[in-house]
Amino acid sequence: MPINALAAHEPKALLKPYAYETDQLSPDEIVLQITHCGICHSDIHLIDNDWTISKYPFVPGHEIVGIITETGNRVSGLEAGQRVGVGWQSGSCHTCEWCASGQENLCPRQIATCVGRHGGFAEKVRTDYRFAFPIPDNLDSENAAPLLCAGITVYSPLKQYGVRHHHRVGVVGIGGLGHVALQFARAMGCEVTAFSSTPEKEPEARAFGADHFVNVNDKQAMKISSGKLDFILSTVTAPLNWSAFISALRPNGRLCFVGASVGNLNVPVGSFVMGQKSVSGSVIGGRAIMNEMLEFAARHQVKAKTELMPLNAVNTAIEKVRNNQARYRMVLSCSNQ
Amino acid sequence: MPINALAAHEPKALLKPYAYETDQLSPDEIVLQITHCGICHSDIHLIDNDWTISKYPFVPGHEIVGIITETGNRVSGLEAGQRVGVGWQSGSCHTCEWCASGQENLCPRQIATCVGRHGGFAEKVRTDYRFAFPIPDNLDSENAAPLLCAGITVYSPLKQYGVRHHHRVGVVGIGGLGHVALQFARAMGCEVTAFSSTPEKEPEARAFGADHFVNVNDKQAMKISSGKLDFILSTVTAPLNWSAFISALRPNGRLCFVGASVGNLNVPVGSFVMGQKSVSGSVIGGRAIMNEMLEFAARHQVKAKTELMPLNAVNTAIEKVRNNQARYRMVLSCSNQ
Repeated sequence: MPINALAAHEPKALLKPYAYETDQLSPDEIVLQITHCGICHSDIHLIDNDWTISKYPFVPGHEIVGIITETGNRVSGLEAGQRVGVGWQSGSCHTCEWCASGQENLCPRQIATCVGRHGGFAEKVRTDYRFAFPIPDNLDSENAAPLLCAGITVYSPLKQYGVRHHHRVGVVGIGGLGHVALQFARAMGCEVTAFSSTPEKEPEARAFGADHFVNVNDKQAMKISSGKLDFILSTVTAPLNWSAFISALRPNGRLCFVGASVGNLNVPVGSFVMGQKSVSGSVIGGRAIMNEMLEFAARHQVKAKTELMPLNAVNTAIEKVRNNQARYRMVLSCSNQ
Repeated sequence: MPINALAAHEPKALLKPYAYETDQLSPDEIVLQITHCGICHSDIHLIDNDWTISKYPFVPGHEIVGIITETGNRVSGLEAGQRVGVGWQSGSCHTCEWCASGQENLCPRQIATCVGRHGGFAEKVRTDYRFAFPIPDNLDSENAAPLLCAGITVYSPLKQYGVRHHHRVGVVGIGGLGHVALQFARAMGCEVTAFSSTPEKEPEARAFGADHFVNVNDKQAMKISSGKLDFILSTVTAPLNWSAFISALRPNGRLCFVGASVGNLNVPVGSFVMGQKSVSGSVIGGRAIMNEMLEFAARHQVKAKTELMPLNAVNTAIEKVRNNQARYRMVLSCSNQ
């Protein structure tokens, strides 16, 4: 089966049309006709080989929504014609302690949708059916596609680290991940504070659910935030003054990093002890929580704010992501390429 | 009521006999005839004014066991003649959200037993009865005294951060705190690893409950520990290679600092994300967990290994603590001074 896609042929290159042949469908696989695929910063890290794991030609894309066109003979619970989504992860061992406890995102043999495999900047993709998630009817494909990576990345820590309705939640960075995090935290009933270095984003941040907006470069505003928050989710890659965010936590509070954060955390050990504070990380989420996230998003109409471009305009779309001009997530329309 | 005590009259000074007058007993207070008082590193920090909060003359001591001799007229549930213990904390507001939820250790108006007050290196001490805890009959006073500070300091994080019987627990630093932590983790049913820079402590660490012993200066042994532990409790004040301990955590694992830790944690933000790891702190514990700790210690005969000296030998005892020669906790016998 030949699949038409867009691929980078070397690090940092523009994507070009590329067709590749696939093996015969294995019993646990399905084929999707892709309708939409979001663009994540991780795709760009992979195009650029920032993590030194990329192989070329390389087809990015791991925020995929499409229609099932074929199913292997062990596939159950899904059928041709059904709309499903596929995120960062598309395989795991299904036997280790993490898989057995619904934490497939921690499986040491996990497979990523576009690492060592070709992803969703394409007309079709093959994947293990156990990592294809039905999209609830009342979510549009365009807005739902980014939930498969950006959405689960921010929903999972809110869930697993015990954020509850009575908590005060901060979201650092109001971009592709952060604007979804604001919506989830608001839908959970929390009091929500947006932290951003872009004051112009305040009105939209409030529309996404923020009760408060703090410019991270405003030292006075940061000081006023001291001791106010139970949970802070950092979605930024840039290094910030993390001590100020630890100070912004209430007793028992937690600062959580997600995504491809870079730089070091360099803070006094003592800042954790008084007030019993924590710093944590979180990485996507397992299959059960993915379904839960999609259902919760549908219930509260949590959706990515997107800008749609056709697959053949992929390089223009990537450029907007590179320049942090996406408001807030670029999505490729793949069905009419 | 005059109280005979031992006090430092200036920073870093030897302690000298000192008698002080106290006010009339307030309705919520009790007076203890002190039989035993442990020596904690915090006492030395206070003697030396390391935290710039000490006032002189200063009577240290916050690991107190004694017999109630007087009770204020609002005291309930305790009576003269009863044996009780008093730890680091001896007061709180009893009304804030933290007090109301049994987390008096997080109360912003908490009172410490020997900060701005005179402590337990004395024949008697006055305290709020709500911070005096009955000592179970089958614990000796000498061995129980250090549980009031060292014991709660290591028990509380094991409890509050969800350590369970099936977990693998590491304890860093096998001293006054660490040797009690080994016993608690073993009594909880965990697999226990002791980390120490003193290989000579291995036999005793194993006797306290360690299944494994790792010399923190042995790079190969540290490497072998990688990915093995669910929870690591650091009881040391010296800065170590914290990245190596974060590497020693399994997915969802946590490194927790207690005590007067110094230095900085300087690690890549990314080391939290993959594997969803956490770094946390913990500070003593509330009243409910203090009673629970004492009951659990009694059930499993968890007790500090102590060396007893009379109160008038306090300067010799302090010198042993200063030089890390205590094996494992110095306790003063106060009743026969």
